[in-house]
Amino acid sequence: MIHKLTRPVLLVDEDKAKANIRYMVEKAEKHNIKLSPHFKTHQSSDIGHWFMEEGVNSITVSSVRMASYFSSYGWKDITIGFPVNIHESETINRLAKDVDLTIFINNEEVAEAISAELSSPVKVFIEIDVGSQRTGICWDNTEQIKRVVKAVSNNSKLIFRGFYSHPGHSYTARSKGEIQSIHKDNLTKIKSVKENLTGVASKIELSLGDTPCCAVAEDFYGLDQITPGNFVFFDLMQNQIGSCNIKDIALALAVPVVDKNEKRKDIAIHGGAIHLSKEFMVENEKRIYGKPVWLENGKWSKPIEKCYLRSLSQEHGIISVTEDVFRKIKIGDWIGILPVHSCLTANLMNGYLTTEGKPLYHFNRSTA
Amino acid sequence: MIHKLTRPVLLVDEDKAKANIRYMVEKAEKHNIKLSPHFKTHQSSDIGHWFMEEGVNSITVSSVRMASYFSSYGWKDITIGFPVNIHESETINRLAKDVDLTIFINNEEVAEAISAELSSPVKVFIEIDVGSQRTGICWDNTEQIKRVVKAVSNNSKLIFRGFYSHPGHSYTARSKGEIQSIHKDNLTKIKSVKENLTGVASKIELSLGDTPCCAVAEDFYGLDQITPGNFVFFDLMQNQIGSCNIKDIALALAVPVVDKNEKRKDIAIHGGAIHLSKEFMVENEKRIYGKPVWLENGKWSKPIEKCYLRSLSQEHGIISVTEDVFRKIKIGDWIGILPVHSCLTANLMNGYLTTEGKPLYHFNRSTA
Repeated sequence: MIHKLTRPVLLVDEDKAKANIRYMVEKAEKHNIKLSPHFKTHQSSDIGHWFMEEGVNSITVSSVRMASYFSSYGWKDITIGFPVNIHESETINRLAKDVDLTIFINNEEVAEAISAELSSPVKVFIEIDVGSQRTGICWDNTEQIKRVVKAVSNNSKLIFRGFYSHPGHSYTARSKGEIQSIHKDNLTKIKSVKENLTGVASKIELSLGDTPCCAVAEDFYGLDQITPGNFVFFDLMQNQIGSCNIKDIALALAVPVVDKNEKRKDIAIHGGAIHLSKEFMVENEKRIYGKPVWLENGKWSKPIEKCYLRSLSQEHGIISVTEDVFRKIKIGDWIGILPVHSCLTANLMNGYLTTEGKPLYHFNRSTA
Repeated sequence: MIHKLTRPVLLVDEDKAKANIRYMVEKAEKHNIKLSPHFKTHQSSDIGHWFMEEGVNSITVSSVRMASYFSSYGWKDITIGFPVNIHESETINRLAKDVDLTIFINNEEVAEAISAELSSPVKVFIEIDVGSQRTGICWDNTEQIKRVVKAVSNNSKLIFRGFYSHPGHSYTARSKGEIQSIHKDNLTKIKSVKENLTGVASKIELSLGDTPCCAVAEDFYGLDQITPGNFVFFDLMQNQIGSCNIKDIALALAVPVVDKNEKRKDIAIHGGAIHLSKEFMVENEKRIYGKPVWLENGKWSKPIEKCYLRSLSQEHGIISVTEDVFRKIKIGDWIGILPVHSCLTANLMNGYLTTEGKPLYHFNRSTA
């Protein structure tokens, strides 16, 4: 397959991705909990189909446009996992005709404003911040939560489902133990939100969970739904956090080697910020933008020891390598790069090739 | 114009961009030096046209695909400013039929390999590293430079033009004085490369310069060409380096406000890493991913004091604001974000809208 490549291509190991999907589907089944995977990671109708084959029928997305895209591929239960943007009510109305649609409302004024624009009722999650300090109402702000629940419940255009939380602060973890401890804390907090509302609303769903927590934790008691996304591919950051083994990573950027520097033992690749994103992680006090792997027999190796992508500009990547590896790699060779953050790499590359050579479609190539 | 927006849009202030172009064109004329602007920043046929109107007829691009794209819009003198990727010889041959094409060769083996694939001669720059530690031969490695010059000069398919350097280390500067001092050093180094080759090659062109050096320096004696790119838009990083005034920045991301957090005085926007990129700068020991501006009368204000984009995830941006600004901004309002790195933001947004409401085309929307 590699001998046909001319420029950087994002490879997906279909076996690994499908195994990752199956793992999470089985985990949700085991805990008797609904899995509504976040599709912002892969943004692909083809990869979405792999989830369908495992019986998944509910998804979460990060924008109204992405909801439209997946709706056109037959998805009927979609949560737009982002505070509703009142300027997109026209598309939301169009979507709500075909789709069992859930939006996020975190504010009384927004409940008022969006409902005035809705042509038919939509479901609503109120977003709860259990520690990520991003969006949503802080879990202990009971008064505000009650006000928004009331504003939503009393509105005939809005159907209150419950509370949603994306605990992005789990990314600060650096071991399975730390993830478990964060998850336990999140669980306590979101359950307390529900407990404090006893008598205010009848049925309240709780949706929690990103990839680190859902991959590692085993206690989901009290939750109705999990919405991890990254697990379909995983990446170096997830490996550093403790969510996956390095062999679970299902994505690698195939890049040509274009220059070498003998003195610095550097390898230059056509693979930069517009392919991988500028996301980095710190390992041994060094910024790492990716790790190189050998491409062989349509698969890739584990990371090449002591070698790492040390800098990125728009199209260039510079890999620091050992003396041995420097000798082995020739200009014109193809190598793979495991990404630090697969969601951003996938978003930039706009399409995939499986290691079997099959192209997979990406949302960004659509006209939605 | 703003009242028609529904989701994040990249605004270009056409007057500012045209003034930036004119400034650089006039500077090149004044110094009697060729300007071959780097089009990787805007990647737009429409913005390319603004350069044509100022008499520019030579351009630099960062990939073979981008060369094909601009060739299809009538550009006839194109340098592919990236170490040649031998796997793209087919496209290079197609391009060379219509275009006065220059490629980069930094290595004897590459000279051999690419020339074996070429159907007709192309021009060649050898890339010199004057301090950026990215690609190219180190300026003081005279032996290797001579070997590659010889390999190129003795090859009937390759026409040796001279030396090219992109001094990316100018981005470490934090004042006009520091930029000037780096530029002076670069100039001395690249001129010494030419001096060391007296008798080896007859005519040798010298091409040097990125936006900081070309925007600030006034000594270009000995150079034949400059190739800055970013100056068409500038950005917060260029302002921090000392290359531009804040009012010269010609690009702002228009975003809707989607959530507010009273306690933290945070404003959440639909504007994240997939719109702005994860590029940040450090100011007062804080990571800054962008700065908010007011959008008014089809233009934008200077940055709102003491407010900055403090974090980004895939679609979310969180702006830290003052008490006053928190009161003033309502959910549903539109604000602008000045980007830290305009090249990466432009690459992610795939298209522009001028502040007069005119859409501008971007390479990533092409099928090249």
